[in-house]
Amino acid sequence: MDRQEAHDRILDAAEQLFYGRGIQAVGMAEIRQASGVSLKRLYQCFASKEDLVDAYLRRRDQRWHQALAEHIDRHRSPERRLLAVFDFLAAWFDTSDFRGCAFINAFGELGAVSTPVAGLARAHKCALRAQLRALAVEADAEDAEALADQLLLLVEGAIVAAAMRQTHHCPAEQGKAAARGLLNAHLSTTTPDLSAPPGE
Amino acid sequence: MDRQEAHDRILDAAEQLFYGRGIQAVGMAEIRQASGVSLKRLYQCFASKEDLVDAYLRRRDQRWHQALAEHIDRHRSPERRLLAVFDFLAAWFDTSDFRGCAFINAFGELGAVSTPVAGLARAHKCALRAQLRALAVEADAEDAEALADQLLLLVEGAIVAAAMRQTHHCPAEQGKAAARGLLNAHLSTTTPDLSAPPGE
Repeated sequence: MDRQEAHDRILDAAEQLFYGRGIQAVGMAEIRQASGVSLKRLYQCFASKEDLVDAYLRRRDQRWHQALAEHIDRHRSPERRLLAVFDFLAAWFDTSDFRGCAFINAFGELGAVSTPVAGLARAHKCALRAQLRALAVEADAEDAEALADQLLLLVEGAIVAAAMRQTHHCPAEQGKAAARGLLNAHLSTTTPDLSAPPGE
Repeated sequence: MDRQEAHDRILDAAEQLFYGRGIQAVGMAEIRQASGVSLKRLYQCFASKEDLVDAYLRRRDQRWHQALAEHIDRHRSPERRLLAVFDFLAAWFDTSDFRGCAFINAFGELGAVSTPVAGLARAHKCALRAQLRALAVEADAEDAEALADQLLLLVEGAIVAAAMRQTHHCPAEQGKAAARGLLNAHLSTTTPDLSAPPGE
């Protein structure tokens, strides 16, 4: 096993355990065992648990945003691109190991005691907000900032509701329906009302 | 100090520490010190950390829902009662020790490894969903279930966004604006369109 392979195996095991059970619930010995890498090699790759948590969150951030972008890019119409965010969520919620947002979980667990974890969680959400804002601009919303903020609430709410299974309906579908309503409300202020009689 | 006073002091200290820093980040010795109660008395009141976590979450659930209900009950019109949920959130977000939802945080931290914590978190959110549903029914929404689900996403999203300070605007205000839009959309399907000429 070369260093790169050891590195990836450790990170894969850490992600599965940290995301699945919580960061503090999992020790380095458990990650060593799950990855099949020696403790010496483990500490050669990651000098501390903090380093490993950092690498886990950074890789997950990158992969999550890339998967979301790919999902959005399957569509061309601005409205469909915006609503595709919720189709992406629906597919994610259906995965067998789904346990909410790794960054919301890590922030709730360690945000108050670990500045690096809090910073990575905020950066992940900041990038999501920027992505939603770009979609709101593409869709020609009059107030793209306000629409992006409202969409952000729906996305975060859907993730939390799905993680805790709070509703019988799929939270992604509920979020999509609400987003469609908000999008229409934001567009109706810019779109001329074609139903009005001419001259009025 | 009698037993009731010791009990309350321990619970107050535990709430401040667990909510402020996370459940696993805080040990019984720290709670003993912060409460000024002897370790012997501490274990007479709460046999284990699990018992204390349970009591902390149950008391917080009760207080939070009572405060929300009191906030709602200051209003009589169904629409205002529904939107008052977001005024309640805005006031909560402004408190100096606000660190998100204790139940979302506890679920993210321990939901996968503690069945009691996961159960208490789900029960807290279930009660919130029921409260929103009652408000949607009062407001005469055509599909109160769907409106309640959508409002739940906005409430959860606002709490998460406020905890992580994801937006420059107040997430409660954004949530309220979105909720007003959703409420109008849900009502417009039942309210007769008074602008239509008679006979049409």
